[in-house]
Amino acid sequence: MDIEIVTIGTELLLGYTLDSNGAEIARSLGEHGVRVVRRTSVGDQSEEIREAVRGALERTGAVLTTGGLGPTRDDVSKRAVAELFGVSLRFDDAVWEALVSRFAKLGRVPVASNRVQAEVPEGATVLPNRWGTAPGLWLDSTRMATREGVRGLVIMLPGVPPEMRNLLQHEVIPRLVQSGSGTVVRSLTVRTTGIPESTLAERLGEIETDIAPLTLAYLPGEDGVDLRVTAWALPPANAERRLRVAAELLQARGGEHVYGEGDTDLATLVLESARARSFHIAVAESCTGGLLAKRLTDTPGSSDVFRGGVVAYDNALKTSLLDVPLELIKRHGAVSEEVARAMALGAARRLDADLTAAVTGIAGPGGGTPDKPVGTAWFATALQGDVATLRSVIPGSRPEMRARAAQAGLYLLIRRLRSA
Amino acid sequence: MDIEIVTIGTELLLGYTLDSNGAEIARSLGEHGVRVVRRTSVGDQSEEIREAVRGALERTGAVLTTGGLGPTRDDVSKRAVAELFGVSLRFDDAVWEALVSRFAKLGRVPVASNRVQAEVPEGATVLPNRWGTAPGLWLDSTRMATREGVRGLVIMLPGVPPEMRNLLQHEVIPRLVQSGSGTVVRSLTVRTTGIPESTLAERLGEIETDIAPLTLAYLPGEDGVDLRVTAWALPPANAERRLRVAAELLQARGGEHVYGEGDTDLATLVLESARARSFHIAVAESCTGGLLAKRLTDTPGSSDVFRGGVVAYDNALKTSLLDVPLELIKRHGAVSEEVARAMALGAARRLDADLTAAVTGIAGPGGGTPDKPVGTAWFATALQGDVATLRSVIPGSRPEMRARAAQAGLYLLIRRLRSA
Repeated sequence: MDIEIVTIGTELLLGYTLDSNGAEIARSLGEHGVRVVRRTSVGDQSEEIREAVRGALERTGAVLTTGGLGPTRDDVSKRAVAELFGVSLRFDDAVWEALVSRFAKLGRVPVASNRVQAEVPEGATVLPNRWGTAPGLWLDSTRMATREGVRGLVIMLPGVPPEMRNLLQHEVIPRLVQSGSGTVVRSLTVRTTGIPESTLAERLGEIETDIAPLTLAYLPGEDGVDLRVTAWALPPANAERRLRVAAELLQARGGEHVYGEGDTDLATLVLESARARSFHIAVAESCTGGLLAKRLTDTPGSSDVFRGGVVAYDNALKTSLLDVPLELIKRHGAVSEEVARAMALGAARRLDADLTAAVTGIAGPGGGTPDKPVGTAWFATALQGDVATLRSVIPGSRPEMRARAAQAGLYLLIRRLRSA
Repeated sequence: MDIEIVTIGTELLLGYTLDSNGAEIARSLGEHGVRVVRRTSVGDQSEEIREAVRGALERTGAVLTTGGLGPTRDDVSKRAVAELFGVSLRFDDAVWEALVSRFAKLGRVPVASNRVQAEVPEGATVLPNRWGTAPGLWLDSTRMATREGVRGLVIMLPGVPPEMRNLLQHEVIPRLVQSGSGTVVRSLTVRTTGIPESTLAERLGEIETDIAPLTLAYLPGEDGVDLRVTAWALPPANAERRLRVAAELLQARGGEHVYGEGDTDLATLVLESARARSFHIAVAESCTGGLLAKRLTDTPGSSDVFRGGVVAYDNALKTSLLDVPLELIKRHGAVSEEVARAMALGAARRLDADLTAAVTGIAGPGGGTPDKPVGTAWFATALQGDVATLRSVIPGSRPEMRARAAQAGLYLLIRRLRSA
């Protein structure tokens, strides 16, 4: 089926906010064989919203909107669409009770403006929002007593990204797929790290020819280079089979730099691998300032493997919390192989861990020298007393350098675990 | 004047590419007083392009397009718009010569498909492209012999971002401003934290009326609720003055929850405020797992204020690195006021800091109990031995909870600093 997306919010017209919701919805729908034929963004005015939705219905017969379902005065989408269908808003007790109980869990009491969020257009199906307060809405003219002669399907989602995402996945797509076309657009991502894009491309050789008619995109980012393979308009089974073959080729040619598919997270792999070996992990950080520990604790349930970390930003703490001899720091500097090694061993002892990673570096923009330019980092891993070290000069701005350094620390951990 | 933006490219409908061109154009036009009233994205099909441009002309009378001006088969915009106006394409010798000489400088020879780029609609003004090969086009129906009765202005730019940007700045905006009204669209953002959107709205009262004709948008995110005020179509000095007045009102009503304007970062404020008082800061984290330390070290030069942090994910480390009595953890649980207090005091002592923040909580999704549901967090700040604590139940998924908890920790730090 074909559909249009209408994203609502004056900030989209001001250009201060990128329409990432619209892009994400387009991607998700495409992957399920629903073709997006137009995207429109309008401001928070009833008239604008009504006209955009009306146009989409006339052209395409189906439209998905996001935004304007919140409790404040600039949230007018629901009323605008109800007017378009010529139905009134009714107060929905079930929605209200869900909202009140959600608030109760958070120790909050709804205020008057929250009541508006429990109003739904007459005849609309409520898509329950377990991730926030504004429910999604499904308005199908064939099942409604519309007074205005509008025909078609309007799906309304809130604009808050996690709420939009969850409602889309759990409520909207299952309903839409029931009425699908037979072919799909499907993508698969193979994740690599520790290798620059151009070197990776050399390794992959004539891959574009070898995987045709599938296409390949290189997506370099802070975690490494992702490789996205896409199958266009194929029957699902055929698309899946070809994608699997392409992934196998990429895996074979990318070698040890390939660490997973899809949204596989390197920190999660480190935790799983350590868990399987009953190892405890700890980290000692300087330039990454907590980011490495954050990565390892992003995953739920990390506490059985991850002991903790020390962010020794100040050199005195490298000594007092990690037992790095002051003498060593004076002689070699805080960014040195010797200090990284001592940090990794100190963390193992003081945080009682089998495997540790330490990183000390210059995140910039200041602090570089000809010998140790901005981006210089020394890494050390200690596995039951056995230390490995690595020097790297990491490109990018301060946040990029830090993110890449944290990912590099995780890459070293997974390599130690694989060889353990 | 009002205008619509139409961005052309099938990749925009697949959602793999964000429409950053559309956002950038909207921002630039707004700053020069041209109000963007709708944005549309369509694929590389003539019919779709024609219908989108026709609709924009009927509604608004002016439209700016990007994309589809290149030499390849999917570049059909120019022909589609020429058909809409009922004019034919003519070969433009000046455009062709510019292209040939540009290629010569790069040591290249044009191929047959490049000739298409020198074709322009009869009656259109050519906007010379010194940054690439496809010229921009300016089609004004009042100056053209259109056969189709289409009325209005169509401006066409290439989709390559630097070419789009340069043509916009050097060719389009000067022409639009000439015919403009001398007014601008200008925005200002006031940042709040520690208060839910609906409670904030109650506090702000009839703010929409009080700041009219300026408009207000609530933008809730992980850092809190941003308030964006926009002045539409006012002379620059008037817009600036009204924005300042509105910011003052928001500041007065938002009170202690307002922490800055624009892209002000709370961590940076904490560092500046501590620096001004010659305080050293340290943190002790459990559920945020390094995120609070990361926030404080995101800012360059944080090392003169920020000593470091301990991520005591494992309870044993709360004792060994932060001197939290094991007894206390057993009696009250790791997520308790007593433990948060002991962590803050322990961090002050062990990390040699004047001011510390500690956070211990349940990030979820598992680990909640009826007494302490997922999202429960205890915070403590210790300022030279004086401890303040706070309990909060923070909504959202695990990453949201963690991000909000880190922001809440920073908010408590700034409040202690302000009262110090």
